[in-house]
Amino acid sequence: MLTAKGAATRDRIVAAAAAEIRERGVGAVTLDDIGRRSGTGKSQLFHYFPEGKEQLLLAVAEREADRVIEDQEPQLGQLTTWEAWREWRDVVVEKYRRQGVNCPLGVLITEIGRHTPAAQAVTGKLLAQWQRRVQAGIEEMKAAGKIRAEVDPARASAALIASIQGGVVILMSSGSAKHLEYALDLCLDYLHGGVTAS
Amino acid sequence: MLTAKGAATRDRIVAAAAAEIRERGVGAVTLDDIGRRSGTGKSQLFHYFPEGKEQLLLAVAEREADRVIEDQEPQLGQLTTWEAWREWRDVVVEKYRRQGVNCPLGVLITEIGRHTPAAQAVTGKLLAQWQRRVQAGIEEMKAAGKIRAEVDPARASAALIASIQGGVVILMSSGSAKHLEYALDLCLDYLHGGVTAS
Repeated sequence: MLTAKGAATRDRIVAAAAAEIRERGVGAVTLDDIGRRSGTGKSQLFHYFPEGKEQLLLAVAEREADRVIEDQEPQLGQLTTWEAWREWRDVVVEKYRRQGVNCPLGVLITEIGRHTPAAQAVTGKLLAQWQRRVQAGIEEMKAAGKIRAEVDPARASAALIASIQGGVVILMSSGSAKHLEYALDLCLDYLHGGVTAS
Repeated sequence: MLTAKGAATRDRIVAAAAAEIRERGVGAVTLDDIGRRSGTGKSQLFHYFPEGKEQLLLAVAEREADRVIEDQEPQLGQLTTWEAWREWRDVVVEKYRRQGVNCPLGVLITEIGRHTPAAQAVTGKLLAQWQRRVQAGIEEMKAAGKIRAEVDPARASAALIASIQGGVVILMSSGSAKHLEYALDLCLDYLHGGVTAS
């Protein structure tokens, strides 16, 4: 358990590492660079990250995963009207359109090793958090009679998260956000279908 | 333009390279291994692939991309009844469930360089072919009155392809096919919705 001061130092190190990696790429960044940017000595770096760069990269990946959710707030946390859903849809498309072919989290996951348990834990936790919020939105809309009773919130939210992932993967290889837009639109049309209440 | 005999030799080299890579991983395979397996000398290898291993890897990637489509036939080419759509859905899920976390095409694309024009041409062509077949199926179902008039075949097929991509990406990191299944089911429910003809 870290003290408040310890947690602040650790955060500063992770933030410095994230900034260095975003600016110069994960391959080029050394612990010395991160120490310099965060104003932290080597011994302090190893105090917080005794396993070195690998462990620090994982902390940066966790931070980038948190940002994926934060970038969709406040819309993602209040999906209670169709207007809110459409706003959220636009926020997601815009975020990934701006990001283009470079995914900061994807770079880190590749570096840590896509098939390692540590990397899988980061992506697994992110997808689960994301999906839970979408599911909560579907449940609220169902309770309000705005989504028909047959829609299964758990399945529909899983499908929606998969659609976004696929749209982003295609955006990263093609440079176009069209697939992401159409995939989100189809899911929203599906959710909206068969109910006339607005 | 290759003669029939030349094309056959080239195919044999590409097939040997694909088999070596599947068995031993792209990093471990040398041109010597491929020459041995295909019964081809170095000078013949360089006759067909003057730029060496890179060029051969690209040919293997094209072959693996063709297999992605072939593995979905005959179902993908005859999406004219709801039964055919459900069969195709099961074929896709089963193919990727069997494949698990290892994507032969993904490995090659990563090796060639995800952001290179050559790699992007291979994935772009595959997605376009795949999407065209799904779109043709939606158009036939619309013409037969089995899909409602408001459904846009180009957009819906793009959304479907994105959903599959996303489901497969999640399967490759989680080991579970649930997201792929729910994403396909949502799209099929969307297509099926609002029409009572079977």
